Amino acid sequence: MNKITEMLLEMVSELSGVPKNAAYNIREDGGCAGRASTDNVRITSKTDEPGIDIRVLPGTKGETVYIPACVTHTGVRDLVYNDFYIGDGADITIVAGCGVHNEGEEEAQHNGVHRFFIGKDARVLYLEKHVGVGEGTGRRVINPQTWVRIDEGGYMKMDTTQIKGVDSTKRITRAELMKDARLVIREKLMTHGEQTAETDFSVDLTGEDSGCDLVSRSVARGSSHQVFRSVINGNTRCTGHSACDAIIMDEGAVSAIPELTAASVDAALIHEAAIGKIAGEQLTKLMTLGLTEQEAEQKIIEGFLK
Amino acid sequence: MNKITEMLLEMVSELSGVPKNAAYNIREDGGCAGRASTDNVRITSKTDEPGIDIRVLPGTKGETVYIPACVTHTGVRDLVYNDFYIGDGADITIVAGCGVHNEGEEEAQHNGVHRFFIGKDARVLYLEKHVGVGEGTGRRVINPQTWVRIDEGGYMKMDTTQIKGVDSTKRITRAELMKDARLVIREKLMTHGEQTAETDFSVDLTGEDSGCDLVSRSVARGSSHQVFRSVINGNTRCTGHSACDAIIMDEGAVSAIPELTAASVDAALIHEAAIGKIAGEQLTKLMTLGLTEQEAEQKIIEGFLK
Repeated sequence: MNKITEMLLEMVSELSGVPKNAAYNIREDGGCAGRASTDNVRITSKTDEPGIDIRVLPGTKGETVYIPACVTHTGVRDLVYNDFYIGDGADITIVAGCGVHNEGEEEAQHNGVHRFFIGKDARVLYLEKHVGVGEGTGRRVINPQTWVRIDEGGYMKMDTTQIKGVDSTKRITRAELMKDARLVIREKLMTHGEQTAETDFSVDLTGEDSGCDLVSRSVARGSSHQVFRSVINGNTRCTGHSACDAIIMDEGAVSAIPELTAASVDAALIHEAAIGKIAGEQLTKLMTLGLTEQEAEQKIIEGFLK
Repeated sequence: MNKITEMLLEMVSELSGVPKNAAYNIREDGGCAGRASTDNVRITSKTDEPGIDIRVLPGTKGETVYIPACVTHTGVRDLVYNDFYIGDGADITIVAGCGVHNEGEEEAQHNGVHRFFIGKDARVLYLEKHVGVGEGTGRRVINPQTWVRIDEGGYMKMDTTQIKGVDSTKRITRAELMKDARLVIREKLMTHGEQTAETDFSVDLTGEDSGCDLVSRSVARGSSHQVFRSVINGNTRCTGHSACDAIIMDEGAVSAIPELTAASVDAALIHEAAIGKIAGEQLTKLMTLGLTEQEAEQKIIEGFLK
């Protein structure tokens, strides 16, 4: 594991060195910089495509699995397929950050396709933090895809965050929920400079009494551009909620394009979106407390994305 | 004017015979069944395409213009272009209903393209009611297009209603708003049987301090299908709000696809959508007051679409 990977790991996974007493796989520039399995969580290399299989035994409780991916220099174009098989009744946390460092003129890119097969009554907390660093002029690109199938009574919470340094991202999430399954997504996104970000959620509520709750909060600064799409299809008795709140600053631009389809009389679907700048009165209030305008803006954005 | 036109006029414009002391044009199966101008409102036939020009003199106040269109028998495929030139500072009401009667096996269709050029500080109340009647098996189709440009300080309120009998409708509305202009749209839609309805609003908020407020309420019964699209582009300091509330019943299906784009830091845009069935507790409450389930449903829908 090189020094840049070490730095990126700390940023995306809050890890100092390799995790202890936990299953992990550290991906570095398309290779493996470290791996461990536990009795309950088995990580193996795929033989037909780049990537790993993560198998969590039924009933596994309280373990955390780390699978960070790092791109450490210019010109790397990484593509990985990671499949997660979560056994019935398991309850685990998966930390899957990605960092891209680019010191040169070429593009540095990570494309990660994560497929989740979540068993009956299993619970998954999935944490995904994306960051770009380095002084190069080459673009830092992260394109995550998350494909989820949640079996009866299963639950997944996905916390996905991209705070800074990523020049271009296309974030695709697809999910299908069986009976009584639930999916909660919390997205936080900040873009600046000339960056572009596209988010594209699509959830099929297929099983009776399934439900999803998608909330995206984003800030577009500089002349960055964001597009938020979300599709919720209610095919049976189910509940779906999607919300997109965006703050625009400077010359930033944001589009929100949610789509709700109720194809069953027992589907209850709701969406809200709001796009605007920071309210003047909020700024004024903080400035009367002694903050400069910039400090006040910073405080408000921190609160918004917390 | 034939008997069916007389009946349709009453349904869509609440007119008994021709209006008195008002400008009007009654369109019947592609022809003109009556026309009058007033000193301030001039109606003339177009020479290059089917339809009329309606010119409202600057400063005209308090007049109502009736321009209903009727299709009275099977096999008619009517297409009309009506242009409205509303002078600066005018304040008028336009009643533009459309009725399609079909007693036969062929399709009966009305396609109306209405273009509005609304002058500075002018105010327009635009009422549009659509209905299909007749015992024929041929489809009754109404496709209204409304193109609006509102000059500085102008205002338009559009009340558009389709209550029953229209088998297929594509409702397109496009608007561009200049400085301080406002557009308010209230749509009410009910579909039943095998009907389909598509609504497609798109508003460009181009002028500073322009604003729009679009609210659609709809009920989809039987195995009818509705798609609601709305696009609001905030290109400057402006406010935009769009809401879609839909009740589904039986095997009805509804999609809501709103799109907000803020391309200026001073654009404030909001959207909400909710799709679901009538709440059980609302039904129960009315039924404890002595109503049957069907009567209770009817009451709730009437309230919702009022």
